[in-house]
Amino acid sequence: MQTNPLIQRLTFLSEIDRLKSVIRQSPILDQSRKENSAEHSWHVAMFALLLQDYASSSVNIERVIKMLLIHDVVEVDVGDTPIHGGSSPDEQHYLETQAANRLFGLLPKEQAAELLALWHEFEEAQSEDALFAKALDRIQPLLANVSTGGGTWTESNVTLEQVLQRYGPTIERGCPALWSICKQLSEEHFAISKHPTTTTTSTSMK
Amino acid sequence: MQTNPLIQRLTFLSEIDRLKSVIRQSPILDQSRKENSAEHSWHVAMFALLLQDYASSSVNIERVIKMLLIHDVVEVDVGDTPIHGGSSPDEQHYLETQAANRLFGLLPKEQAAELLALWHEFEEAQSEDALFAKALDRIQPLLANVSTGGGTWTESNVTLEQVLQRYGPTIERGCPALWSICKQLSEEHFAISKHPTTTTTSTSMK
Ligand SMILES: [Ca+2]
Repeated sequence: MQTNPLIQRLTFLSEIDRLKSVIRQSPILDQSRKENSAEHSWHVAMFALLLQDYASSSVNIERVIKMLLIHDVVEVDVGDTPIHGGSSPDEQHYLETQAANRLFGLLPKEQAAELLALWHEFEEAQSEDALFAKALDRIQPLLANVSTGGGTWTESNVTLEQVLQRYGPTIERGCPALWSICKQLSEEHFAISKHPTTTTTSTSMK
Repeated sequence: MQTNPLIQRLTFLSEIDRLKSVIRQSPILDQSRKENSAEHSWHVAMFALLLQDYASSSVNIERVIKMLLIHDVVEVDVGDTPIHGGSSPDEQHYLETQAANRLFGLLPKEQAAELLALWHEFEEAQSEDALFAKALDRIQPLLANVSTGGGTWTESNVTLEQVLQRYGPTIERGCPALWSICKQLSEEHFAISKHPTTTTTSTSMK
């Protein structure tokens, strides 16, 4: 086992390169392909940076950004678990915890402990920082889906009710200021997809 | 022009999605394809988070992370400029400044000014934060190249001297603690590629 702290860190940084090959359900906005978890992690960190004014006043945005940068690294070992998939949450939690221990365990002890704690905080979704991070992690794919004519939702025959149920509580709890627009955009999407010729009062982002 | 600050921010966040389609010179580590600028931005932000102990004591790592998250967004308009390319620096600077004004200009005035200033600080490479960020932005592709049997360097017939000249000053100035290992790994790479049968005293990261 490597004990030079610099080499340990560089090894970790090499290992997580594989996140660039973990493919998520959501498309990129030009619909040329699906998004990978590395670029998703960058995008949600940008969401945090840009949308900090809509967080509760006790949120530390720098911690949220760090949390979002690392929130998906376990996927290097276990892959992405789709929100509309059917895997058992307990099984998934067990595998992701194993992966977190292995990956952060590559690092010097103190740094490993710090990042593992930050990852657990995100997973547990109790602190204000984690709740805001979790909300952003739902808002980004929701907007990708409404911006691409349904994206994942269309493919998986997801209904408006399922969207409101699967995204709603997390977004409403962690970032209430954004839930109304997310809800409205989702409703508009399903109204259009049911009646493709109807013109709606669109909340277009352009 | 949009004046709702939330819609302005969501528009910006949609616009920068195109960074996922800007292809850089460096390969991802499994060599299946080249890296895009969005996942590169995530990876260098992770380099900052992990390697903060090697920065000068006056570096504010949270500012460095923000700087690295936004450092390449101008490529949405102008594409990636390869380090081994031949474009005129003045022309490139002019185009990137235009792009920064357009993109950050999509945001509410105060936020636009803040992020534009952070982007200029990175570009000017004078502050301690910017110098560290610039060094990481060189270290990440250097390591990708040495980890993939040469990557860009092999393709572009880049020599050891060119590597030391093009990466060296930026890394040595912004993160002197990492220059010796980067130099050593580069020298080992070129020693092996000249004499493929020679075994070197490898500083392997595994
Ligand atoms: Ca660049």
